[in-house]
Amino acid sequence: MRREHKVLIEDDLARVVGEKGSTLDEMSIDFLVTVGGDGTILRAMQLGDFNILGVNISRVGFLTEVGVEDLEGALRNLAEGKFVIDERIKLKVEVNGKRQSDCTNEAVIHTASLAKVRRFRISIDGEAVATVEGDGIIVATPTGSTAYSMSAGGPILDPRVKAFVITALAPFRQTLRPTVVPADGRVEVELLNRGPCVMVLDGQQEIKLPAKAMVGFTISEKRARFVRFTKAFYTRVNEKLMEGLHS
Amino acid sequence: MRREHKVLIEDDLARVVGEKGSTLDEMSIDFLVTVGGDGTILRAMQLGDFNILGVNISRVGFLTEVGVEDLEGALRNLAEGKFVIDERIKLKVEVNGKRQSDCTNEAVIHTASLAKVRRFRISIDGEAVATVEGDGIIVATPTGSTAYSMSAGGPILDPRVKAFVITALAPFRQTLRPTVVPADGRVEVELLNRGPCVMVLDGQQEIKLPAKAMVGFTISEKRARFVRFTKAFYTRVNEKLMEGLHS
Amino acid sequence: MRREHKVLIEDDLARVVGEKGSTLDEMSIDFLVTVGGDGTILRAMQLGDFNILGVNISRVGFLTEVGVEDLEGALRNLAEGKFVIDERIKLKVEVNGKRQSDCTNEAVIHTASLAKVRRFRISIDGEAVATVEGDGIIVATPTGSTAYSMSAGGPILDPRVKAFVITALAPFRQTLRPTVVPADGRVEVELLNRGPCVMVLDGQQEIKLPAKAMVGFTISEKRARFVRFTKAFYTRVNEKLMEGLHS
Amino acid sequence: MRREHKVLIEDDLARVVGEKGSTLDEMSIDFLVTVGGDGTILRAMQLGDFNILGVNISRVGFLTEVGVEDLEGALRNLAEGKFVIDERIKLKVEVNGKRQSDCTNEAVIHTASLAKVRRFRISIDGEAVATVEGDGIIVATPTGSTAYSMSAGGPILDPRVKAFVITALAPFRQTLRPTVVPADGRVEVELLNRGPCVMVLDGQQEIKLPAKAMVGFTISEKRARFVRFTKAFYTRVNEKLMEGLHS
Repeated sequence: MRREHKVLIEDDLARVVGEKGSTLDEMSIDFLVTVGGDGTILRAMQLGDFNILGVNISRVGFLTEVGVEDLEGALRNLAEGKFVIDERIKLKVEVNGKRQSDCTNEAVIHTASLAKVRRFRISIDGEAVATVEGDGIIVATPTGSTAYSMSAGGPILDPRVKAFVITALAPFRQTLRPTVVPADGRVEVELLNRGPCVMVLDGQQEIKLPAKAMVGFTISEKRARFVRFTKAFYTRVNEKLMEGLHS
Repeated sequence: MRREHKVLIEDDLARVVGEKGSTLDEMSIDFLVTVGGDGTILRAMQLGDFNILGVNISRVGFLTEVGVEDLEGALRNLAEGKFVIDERIKLKVEVNGKRQSDCTNEAVIHTASLAKVRRFRISIDGEAVATVEGDGIIVATPTGSTAYSMSAGGPILDPRVKAFVITALAPFRQTLRPTVVPADGRVEVELLNRGPCVMVLDGQQEIKLPAKAMVGFTISEKRARFVRFTKAFYTRVNEKLMEGLHS
Repeated sequence: MRREHKVLIEDDLARVVGEKGSTLDEMSIDFLVTVGGDGTILRAMQLGDFNILGVNISRVGFLTEVGVEDLEGALRNLAEGKFVIDERIKLKVEVNGKRQSDCTNEAVIHTASLAKVRRFRISIDGEAVATVEGDGIIVATPTGSTAYSMSAGGPILDPRVKAFVITALAPFRQTLRPTVVPADGRVEVELLNRGPCVMVLDGQQEIKLPAKAMVGFTISEKRARFVRFTKAFYTRVNEKLMEGLHS
Repeated sequence: MRREHKVLIEDDLARVVGEKGSTLDEMSIDFLVTVGGDGTILRAMQLGDFNILGVNISRVGFLTEVGVEDLEGALRNLAEGKFVIDERIKLKVEVNGKRQSDCTNEAVIHTASLAKVRRFRISIDGEAVATVEGDGIIVATPTGSTAYSMSAGGPILDPRVKAFVITALAPFRQTLRPTVVPADGRVEVELLNRGPCVMVLDGQQEIKLPAKAMVGFTISEKRARFVRFTKAFYTRVNEKLMEGLHS
């Protein structure tokens, strides 16, 4: 690495390796190298607006760019500017008008009581889309479309499509088909039951939702930015999510 | 009703109407009339081995036989022997070898932590079926095949098929297709993670599952018995679950 | 209707009612009133660039705006300018570089021999998306997302999303999830087998595809334009496609 | 191979290798060794009641038992009686009362005109199950449940379950969920349209169905018998149909 790059180490990691570290919010950095899996990246994304190079030491690591065995070459390419930035839209989330952490992947509204389905009224820009009875509702970005939303039956959204996808979890009588809505609209999910729900943001943060809460989803003014060296989106989908299925 | 029938009133209800009542387990009864929805029936089924006539005052009431407006005629038919018994298999459930309540509909094993998927190893009669990563696993009877399992993407099982259906909840990479297994086999679901799971029996009873628990499913020696006057199974499916879809 | 509107009658219809008619391509018209179902509209769309008011005499008529019983009021509203134009993107289709009819709903590539699956290589802007074995491939507009693509498991696309959806018909081993791609990209489907395929455009026109054909899909420079009086998109989805499911 | 086994060669193959051959129906044989894929096995099954050892030279070969590289060992095991017979139920098919070839995998009723959906009325033992609008209907055995029916969204049926599964092809408004019915019942599919349909038996044989035809499905008195050396059903499912998905 050439000397004009300065490397900062995140506090927790610093302690492990016996170095002096700083917390993510103290750092003024151009690039953040995460070592872990998608969870590590998603947590970092919630803490700030970084260009992220994800190094994978997990089993899938869909959002990561290189394995740990390629770390050295990756850092060299990064230092030499041999990369592109893959910019993705993020989801702005409000509960009864109060802003929450943005989501890179998805927000999941889920019944807090496993045995009890809940009813949700979904609208976009004020127009009723559907009233759904089920375990929950996922609102996902294109980046999140290949994560939890896909497990729940949702489609893949090409990252270039400026849209969100609404997918129901175990909907009774299939009253909501996965629905792709424009990112410049406002999706609202209203909890119709008195019973408790929780919301999980990017699989990292769990929020209790008050009864009758109204949760709003719009595009965030922030973006998620990934350092990419080579692989295109669908190559990644096939390798990470469907490997072995193609012959 | 002719006088050779004796009517007992369940304790809680008795208090409401100012009568003397008895608890379900004190009663020696031929027929139990439930007033409520499916939950009422499923709870009663867990308490004993009754012939059940379900009177519906709920929104769907798939397992019920008559609406409350038809109660009088129903009781007359019951008294006059103008009915058939619709007998269904039940699921025997064991956690690490310890028997739990039987299920009329289904047992659901679910991650206790919404944000965290779990891994489950499923086998039948000792043969590995699949290792699944997801929110949970449903093992359903034919009776339960039109309930939660169907919302999760499972098929309808004709009540005459002596089988159970295993359906995964939001499985990552679709590693488990809904699978129909013979009721005389033994299904085992092994929790591979250290993280907590819960099991919900018939949507009524929630059990904590210890880490690495092994849950076994076989056919119960008990049966669920419903009093039926007229409607056949598929008529019921179409009316209750898909009404308005047929023209 | 006020007198500054001139009404032309299409030839075939004219003969039936004993009037003098003209063919659609001779007419220079602002609005075309179709009487029939979606097929009637889709055929008319292939013949020219009209603002269409669809009058429904069919069973579903998802694309139509009014029933025949409301025809008089509809024509009055039309004459008085009390309507909006609902503009939708169309699909431009090329077979080995040769342009075909545009599609308002979808193009379906299908094995010509029912018993024989075919292999298709799908790419977008030159990047391989997937190689799929199955009965066929549907490329649908948002307008078509609620038609055949939905029956094949595809998501609903809000008409404001500028995207197409690629849905496989009975794909072996689920190698293609429904995939939503940007309308300004170029989708290509390459037939990998020597065996024959056919392509059906908007359910109206059937084209034989030569072995090894390359079929290209981009956004058309033309638009589909529907006269709308009141009902919004999701109201229509719920009424026409899911009626009876909402309580 | 020990000398008490006599080897006959099928006519077509005999010509290729310059030997004297006989046709399958002239042979009185205990075991039939097929070299090919599933299609080869399914065709042979239609010609007689053999114990089949399938040797795979195709890409998937779900029904085959060994690869061609293991042929010698397989024949030795066969000669020495080191195998088990895996017996499966077959489907008896009647069109307007006239019996057709039995199916080992499935019968598919399909619109003959790709652009036109058809309506089908499905009943079991005289009870209406559903009226479906779509491309077609599949009735599959447990053996066929992992073939075309699965591509169309059907569940896996354990071979020990004595049942058939009815799966719709691209059903409009999802009016038929995959439905598992007892093998000792009689499934009937009635074509409601005047338009033509075709039926494909085991992917091998195509039959024109007259308008308004009534197609009946029951269990055949014949069985399909596969020579198996080692692998159990689910191992096969995971290797052949989902390989690479399990880690």
